[in-house]
Amino acid sequence: MKIAILGGDGFVGWPTALHLSDAGHEIHIIDNLSRRWIDTELGVQSLTPMDSIQERTRIWHAETGRRIHFHLIDLARDYQIFKSWLVQNKPDAIVHFAEQRAAPYSMKSDRHKNYTVNNNVNATHNVLNAIVETGIDAHLVHLGTMGVYGYSTVGAAIPEGYLPVGIDTMSGETVKQDILYPANPGSIYHMTKCLDQLLFQFYAKNDGLRITDLHQGIVWGTHTPQTERHPQLINRFDYDGDYGTVLNRFLIQAAIGYPLTVHGTGGQTRAFIHIRDSVRCIELALKNPPARGDKVEIFNQMTETHRVKDLAELVAKLTGAQVAYLPNPRKEAPENDLVVNNEKFLGLGLDPTRLEDGLLAEVVDVAKKFSYRVDRSRVPATSAWTKEIAPRINRDPEGKSLKSVS
Amino acid sequence: MKIAILGGDGFVGWPTALHLSDAGHEIHIIDNLSRRWIDTELGVQSLTPMDSIQERTRIWHAETGRRIHFHLIDLARDYQIFKSWLVQNKPDAIVHFAEQRAAPYSMKSDRHKNYTVNNNVNATHNVLNAIVETGIDAHLVHLGTMGVYGYSTVGAAIPEGYLPVGIDTMSGETVKQDILYPANPGSIYHMTKCLDQLLFQFYAKNDGLRITDLHQGIVWGTHTPQTERHPQLINRFDYDGDYGTVLNRFLIQAAIGYPLTVHGTGGQTRAFIHIRDSVRCIELALKNPPARGDKVEIFNQMTETHRVKDLAELVAKLTGAQVAYLPNPRKEAPENDLVVNNEKFLGLGLDPTRLEDGLLAEVVDVAKKFSYRVDRSRVPATSAWTKEIAPRINRDPEGKSLKSVS
Ligand SMILES: NC(=O)c1ccc[n+]([C@@H]2O[C@H](COP(=O)([O-])OP(=O)(O)OC[C@H]3O[C@@H](n4cnc5c(N)ncnc54)[C@H](O)[C@@H]3O)[C@@H](O)[C@H]2O)c1
Ligand SMILES: NC(=O)c1ccc[n+]([C@@H]2O[C@H](COP(=O)([O-])OP(=O)(O)OC[C@H]3O[C@@H](n4cnc5c(N)ncnc54)[C@H](O)[C@@H]3O)[C@@H](O)[C@H]2O)c1
Repeated sequence: MKIAILGGDGFVGWPTALHLSDAGHEIHIIDNLSRRWIDTELGVQSLTPMDSIQERTRIWHAETGRRIHFHLIDLARDYQIFKSWLVQNKPDAIVHFAEQRAAPYSMKSDRHKNYTVNNNVNATHNVLNAIVETGIDAHLVHLGTMGVYGYSTVGAAIPEGYLPVGIDTMSGETVKQDILYPANPGSIYHMTKCLDQLLFQFYAKNDGLRITDLHQGIVWGTHTPQTERHPQLINRFDYDGDYGTVLNRFLIQAAIGYPLTVHGTGGQTRAFIHIRDSVRCIELALKNPPARGDKVEIFNQMTETHRVKDLAELVAKLTGAQVAYLPNPRKEAPENDLVVNNEKFLGLGLDPTRLEDGLLAEVVDVAKKFSYRVDRSRVPATSAWTKEIAPRINRDPEGKSLKSVS
Repeated sequence: MKIAILGGDGFVGWPTALHLSDAGHEIHIIDNLSRRWIDTELGVQSLTPMDSIQERTRIWHAETGRRIHFHLIDLARDYQIFKSWLVQNKPDAIVHFAEQRAAPYSMKSDRHKNYTVNNNVNATHNVLNAIVETGIDAHLVHLGTMGVYGYSTVGAAIPEGYLPVGIDTMSGETVKQDILYPANPGSIYHMTKCLDQLLFQFYAKNDGLRITDLHQGIVWGTHTPQTERHPQLINRFDYDGDYGTVLNRFLIQAAIGYPLTVHGTGGQTRAFIHIRDSVRCIELALKNPPARGDKVEIFNQMTETHRVKDLAELVAKLTGAQVAYLPNPRKEAPENDLVVNNEKFLGLGLDPTRLEDGLLAEVVDVAKKFSYRVDRSRVPATSAWTKEIAPRINRDPEGKSLKSVS
C-alpha cells in the first residue's frame, strides 16, 4: 500500500512509519515539524538525541534499502498544497497523527488554547475536505484519545466508541440505540479530539468516507524493533511537564533521583499502551478498514489501566525512588474508576506488552542511559487548568519557586 | 445592562440590537460586516434596501435619542482586539450571532467548507477564551440551531438540549442520565454549531462561564416594532438560493410569479419562529441567566413545526402560486417527523406570533412591495451536498440551465 503518515516525525508517527516501511509499504511522511519548534519555544528537548527527519530517513535507507519520503506541509494552513499532493500521490491510506497533543500545553495560556483549537480542527478538517474534493478513495486512520470519553460516572464499562442507551419514546416504549459516547473532555486538547469525532461522523455520513478513529491510551516506552536498528533511528522521549506523559516522567524522575511527582491524590485511573503495541494496532486498523457507507469504525487502543499512585509505587519499588504528592494543576475528579473494553484489537490478534515486563528495560536502556541529558528545571508541570488553580502550583518538589523557570 | 451584540449587523442581530436598545440597555454592535461581503461575492442583495450599519445607527439615534455603538472587529481573526475591547467595556452580557449561517453556502465548495469551519469555530472559541482570560463575568447567549439535533429517528420528542437516557451498568442496573442530545448535523454549517456546543460545555465546566445556547428554528418575517419606525431601519430579507430560508423564499417566489420550489418530496418537517418572537426570546434568555457553575442552559427557540410541502401549499393557497417539485440538493431523509419541546420560553411568558396570522402581512408589506428589486436568476438553490448530487440540480424550474449563473 501507499500510505501517507501525517505527523510522521512525532513520537508515535516515526516508529509507525518505520514499522509500516519494514512491512513493505510505500511510506510518505507529511509533517510541518511544529513539534520541533515547540521544543524550541519551551526550551526543552527529547531525552534521547533525535536527528533531523531528513537524516533519519537517510539512515533508514542506508540500513534497509527502503525509502521513506518526507514532505514539509502544514496541514492546518496549506490546504491547497496538501490537495495537490493528494492528487499527485493518490495514497491508499492516510494515518493522521498531525495534531498538538499535550493537554498541559493546550492549557498554558490563551495563545496556546487558540493555537491548539486552530491547529487541530483545521488540520483534521482540511484532510477530510481534501479527500472529498479530490475524490481519492483513501482509508483515513486517525489517532484519537481515551480522553474523549471523560470517564463513566455511572459504573458502565467504556465501550469502543458507541454506547447503547435506552430512549423513552412518545408512545411510551423504550428504544435501544447506539450513540457516539457522550463527550466530556478534560482539556482544550482533549476537546479538539471530540470536535474531530463529529467531523468524522459527518464526513462518513455525507460523503461516504472510510474512517477509523483510534481512541488511544497513554503511550509509554521508546523502542520498537525498527528504531533499535541504528542509534540514529531512536525515537523521541519527552519528559518535561508539558509533553512528558505520566509513566515516562516517573521513569526519568527515578533515573535522576527526583521525587516521582503525583498530582492530587493519584487516584485517577488511566489507560496505557506500549509504543510497540501502538504501531501494531495501527497496522491492524489499516488491514481492517470499514466499508464505504459504514459509520466511523472506533477501536479503543489501550492494553491496561492503572491508578497513577499505583504506577508511582511500582516505579518506586523497582528503583528506590521517593513519591511526592503535589497540588493538582488539572480540574478533574480526584478519584475515578475506569473499565475499558478493548476486545476488538485483541480479537484481531494483538498480544500486548505488559507494563510489568517492559518497565525495567525502559528504566535501564533509556532513562538511566540518557539521564545525563536531563534538565531538572523542566521536570515540574507548570500549566494550570484555571486561573484559580495557577497560584497553588508554582512550587516544585525540590522546594524551589518555579517562577524563574516558567 | 451593557450588552455586546456580536454579529449585530445581521438579519436577527439588527432587530435584536434595536429591541434591546429600545428596552433601555446600552448596546454595542461588534461585526466584521462579512455578510455584506458575501452578498458581494454571490452578487446578491437583500430584497429590502438596507443601509450601512453606520447610517442605520445614526437614524436610530435621530429617531429615539438612543445610541447604538458600532465596532468593526473580526471575531475569528482579531482575538487581541476583541480582548482589549472586553477589558475596556466590561459588558454584562454578550449575545453571539457572529457566524456564517447558511447551510447551502457552507456546502458550495471546499473553500466555503473551510471558511465556515474556520470562521465559526474560531469566532466562538475566541469569545470564550477572551472571557476567561479577561475575567469578565458576562453572561454569554449564543444562537444555535435546531439543526444540531438532526431529528429523532426513534419517535421521541426533541428535548431542550439534554436527553434523558438509560445506561446499563456493569452491576446490571440501568441508570438514568441526562446527556447532551447526540448530534447528527446535516451540513457543515450545522456541524459547526455542534462543535460550538462542546466548546460551551467545556468552558462552563472548566471555568464556570455562564452560557445560554438557543437552539433556534428557521426565522421568518422581517419587521419588528422597532425596524418599522423608519424606512431606513428596515431589516434585511434574503431570498437567494443560499441565504434565503424556506418560507421567505416561498413568499418572494409567490410575489414574482415564480413556482414555489420544493426540494425532494417536501416531507421534511422544520421548526419556525417569527423574527418578533426571536428578539423577545433573546431578551427572556438575558433576563434568566444560569448561575456560575451551572451546566449550559439550553432553550429550544421555536414556536411551530410544519412540513415543507404543507407550507408551500399554504402560501400557494394565499397567493395562487404554483408549486414545483425539484431534485433535493441536500443529503437528508426524504421524510421526517419532528416534535419539539419548547415549554421553557412559553413558561417565561412568550406569546407566539402564529404563521397563519402573520403570513399575509408579510406577503403584502414586504414581498410584493419590494418585488421590483428581485433578480430571478438568484432564486434557484445551486449548492449541492455531495459530488454525486451536483449534476442532478443544475436546472431551474423555469427550465433554463443554471450553469451560466452559478
Ligand atoms: N503520545 C501519547 O501518549 C498519545 C496518547 C493518545 C493519543 N495520542 C495521539 O497520537 C497522535 C500522535 O501523538 P505523538 O505523541 O506522536 O505526538 P507528537 O507531538 O510527538 O507528534 C505529532 C506530530 O504532528 C506534527 N504536526 C502537528 N500539527 C501539524 C500540522 N498542522 N501539520 C503537519 N504536521 C503537524 C508535529 O510536528 C509532530 O511531528 C496525536 O494526535 C495524539 O493526540 C498520543
Ligand atoms: N436566520 C435564521 O433563520 C437562523 C435560524 C437558526 C439560527 N440562526 C443563527 O442566528 C445567528 C444570526 O443569524 P442571522 O440570520 O442573523 O445571520 P446573518 O448572516 O444575517 O448575521 C450574522 C452576522 O454575523 C457577522 N459575522 C459573521 N462572522 C463574523 C466574525 N468572524 N466576526 C464578526 N462578525 C461576524 C456577519 O457579518 C453578520 O452581520 C447565526 O449564528 C445563525 O446561525 C439563524
